[in-house]
Amino acid sequence: MTLENLTNQINKKKSFLCVGLDVDLEKIPPHLLQEDDPVYAFAKAIIDATHDLCVAYKPNTAFFEAYGVKGWMALEKTINYINENYPDHFTIADAKRGDIGNTSTRYAKAFFEDLNFDSVTIAPYMGKDSVEPFLAFEDKFAILLALTSNAGAYDFQTKTIDGKPLYQEVLKTASQYTNSDRLMYVVGATKAEYLTEIRNIIPDAFLLVPGVGAQGGSLEDVIKYGKNDQIGLLVNSSRGIIYASNGEDFADVAREKALALQQQMAELL
Amino acid sequence: MTLENLTNQINKKKSFLCVGLDVDLEKIPPHLLQEDDPVYAFAKAIIDATHDLCVAYKPNTAFFEAYGVKGWMALEKTINYINENYPDHFTIADAKRGDIGNTSTRYAKAFFEDLNFDSVTIAPYMGKDSVEPFLAFEDKFAILLALTSNAGAYDFQTKTIDGKPLYQEVLKTASQYTNSDRLMYVVGATKAEYLTEIRNIIPDAFLLVPGVGAQGGSLEDVIKYGKNDQIGLLVNSSRGIIYASNGEDFADVAREKALALQQQMAELL
Repeated sequence: MTLENLTNQINKKKSFLCVGLDVDLEKIPPHLLQEDDPVYAFAKAIIDATHDLCVAYKPNTAFFEAYGVKGWMALEKTINYINENYPDHFTIADAKRGDIGNTSTRYAKAFFEDLNFDSVTIAPYMGKDSVEPFLAFEDKFAILLALTSNAGAYDFQTKTIDGKPLYQEVLKTASQYTNSDRLMYVVGATKAEYLTEIRNIIPDAFLLVPGVGAQGGSLEDVIKYGKNDQIGLLVNSSRGIIYASNGEDFADVAREKALALQQQMAELL
Repeated sequence: MTLENLTNQINKKKSFLCVGLDVDLEKIPPHLLQEDDPVYAFAKAIIDATHDLCVAYKPNTAFFEAYGVKGWMALEKTINYINENYPDHFTIADAKRGDIGNTSTRYAKAFFEDLNFDSVTIAPYMGKDSVEPFLAFEDKFAILLALTSNAGAYDFQTKTIDGKPLYQEVLKTASQYTNSDRLMYVVGATKAEYLTEIRNIIPDAFLLVPGVGAQGGSLEDVIKYGKNDQIGLLVNSSRGIIYASNGEDFADVAREKALALQQQMAELL
């Protein structure tokens, strides 16, 4: 998918919502456990119930990997279902990968070619030659961890290097990489006060913003400090939508929660 | 596996060699491509040819993931083969994972419980609550990226925080995490000159050292600056062993290369 397509979808739907698919067998409605593939059955129902309200889906690969080969098959079915039925949606493999050159190329092929995701999340610690292999694919994107929404972000990301926090060094350095126009960045909504400085460094890049809802981030602040001329935001919600009910009405309730967020977005835009 | 077991194996075999299983269909001997599962067939042959010379195996998960569900099945068969036939070997899932708490727990379960690896490699960028979930499993280990062997290591890892390079901050901070006795660290052999300072910070921890051989690191320097009282080293070689020949003799030649490294280790110890 191109950035232009993604922005068009956002404008058309008045939504920059990304629904996170963290499918946990211990949390999904018990009646689904009788299905052949409960993980896929749950993901499919959530997708069908929310597709017109969101512009992106983000399967969290950890939750699929946890079920081994069966989980990996469920991931394949899920991404194929989205690509076949809702091809206008931007897809994110939330995998937080990153390794030396030839290995990163393997990961990129796994997610971009084998599974046909539009993007994959990447950790920056190993630097340029671990990130650039992901940027070599046309109309595919690497979403680099910059400032994450968790408490551990303060261990290293906010520590000062040459008078600036590490996450800013990551933004500055990465924006010099080859094909850096294919980079997006993860910035947690729980740290919205940092967004002004972040936008000074990377005014044009898309930000993937987790942490609204369950983790306590404010949608209003994210828009106020993080929006750019093309909007340039994808706000993710996972648990707040997909586990809002674990009864037989789970998909309807997920839709209600997604609708509430979409309406808030439409108002704030 | 316990650390005591691992050290016993090292002393018994006079070897701290780890064989990296980066199984690439474009590099394995062409005659194996006719096998039902060429990735597994190759890995199995390498394991059978080298098991008495090494103490650890490190499948690189990227190379398996690149082949989708089939690749994941090959990874399962490979780790099961090692655990069933060579249970004294320490096994490392080279996966470079790391995410917020509940997601890290999922990854830990995938590698420690579902696949039954002894350890998994982890990226430190997201801090404490992304690492500690991996440390909650008895006799299992998380191997944290500290100073990697690639050129991109200089992008962030060696940058100065409070007068010390980031990788030293990672070592100091991580060694305060709960159950940090279950941590090991990745330090590239290409940066052996840093090992003295690293040993000052983490005198007791095992180091996983890639970069000897194909990447140009010196085994002699690694031992000189990196060994501790219990040896405390696992030196990894992948390409230099497994792709030394791509003829029908590939397993024999891999054995020769592993033997040369083991003999060098025995002499230097």
